[in-house]
Amino acid sequence: MAHEAPFQLLHSELIHYICKTADGADSENGRSVTKLENMGFRVGQGLIERLTKDTARFKDELDVMKFICKDFWTCVFKKQIDNLRTNHQGIYVLQDNKFLLLSHMSAGKQYLEHAPKYLAFTCGLVRGALSNMGVKSIVTAEVSVMPACKFQVMIQKL
Amino acid sequence: MAHEAPFQLLHSELIHYICKTADGADSENGRSVTKLENMGFRVGQGLIERLTKDTARFKDELDVMKFICKDFWTCVFKKQIDNLRTNHQGIYVLQDNKFLLLSHMSAGKQYLEHAPKYLAFTCGLVRGALSNMGVKSIVTAEVSVMPACKFQVMIQKL
Repeated sequence: MAHEAPFQLLHSELIHYICKTADGADSENGRSVTKLENMGFRVGQGLIERLTKDTARFKDELDVMKFICKDFWTCVFKKQIDNLRTNHQGIYVLQDNKFLLLSHMSAGKQYLEHAPKYLAFTCGLVRGALSNMGVKSIVTAEVSVMPACKFQVMIQKL
Repeated sequence: MAHEAPFQLLHSELIHYICKTADGADSENGRSVTKLENMGFRVGQGLIERLTKDTARFKDELDVMKFICKDFWTCVFKKQIDNLRTNHQGIYVLQDNKFLLLSHMSAGKQYLEHAPKYLAFTCGLVRGALSNMGVKSIVTAEVSVMPACKFQVMIQKL
């Protein structure tokens, strides 16, 4: 019964609060997005610690990514990633066809400009989770048609 | 598997973020608590709308309070309120013996001074939920031994 609602509503309040204090300039908008990303990073770190407490060791990078797409995604967003693709050279694309944190916005292009705010926390979330598993990455997101979106993970080789 | 973790960690980040910007003066602390309470209020409003979409009409105030203690509490905190008491004159005391948002803090009195920050959002949550059901209230909280706490709801007769 609406199990995902508390998280989703709290996330919306957070965006509202952080962006309200920004003054509307582009630089301020960018700073809000960075703040959200950083918060996501720390939540991702905490979350993966709890989720991997009793799991077996991951055998490789792909195994780690599958865990993010299934267990991690289900824990946060109550569904799995719909499609995972990779070029086998450190780039992964995670596609969610009905992303929870966009699901309250109208489909179509009307609110497309607001999408980055609603994706920044989750980019950080994935980056934080991977970071705690020893995988350094850059995570970006794009939306073409709401509420579907794609997260691109670029692994940073050490 | 750790279903309550995303909400709990996001709530902690929120407190961290809001209190970080406060300068440590008592007035600023009070303002942070008020901000958290207000955010809780709006989340509570949104949440109760979804939860009551398909429920039957509530027959009285006590019936509303029972819904808060069972369905509403379970949705947010993954457990029911352990004890509900009332003086039948508009005061209700909701006791949670293991409150999720305090469960990561050590038991005992060491961090007791930080408790108000961790309860403010939930006070607002309850007030917002009741408000959307047409019940105006004042909600306060107290902790004697972590992680148990009591929420007192004073109904404001119109």
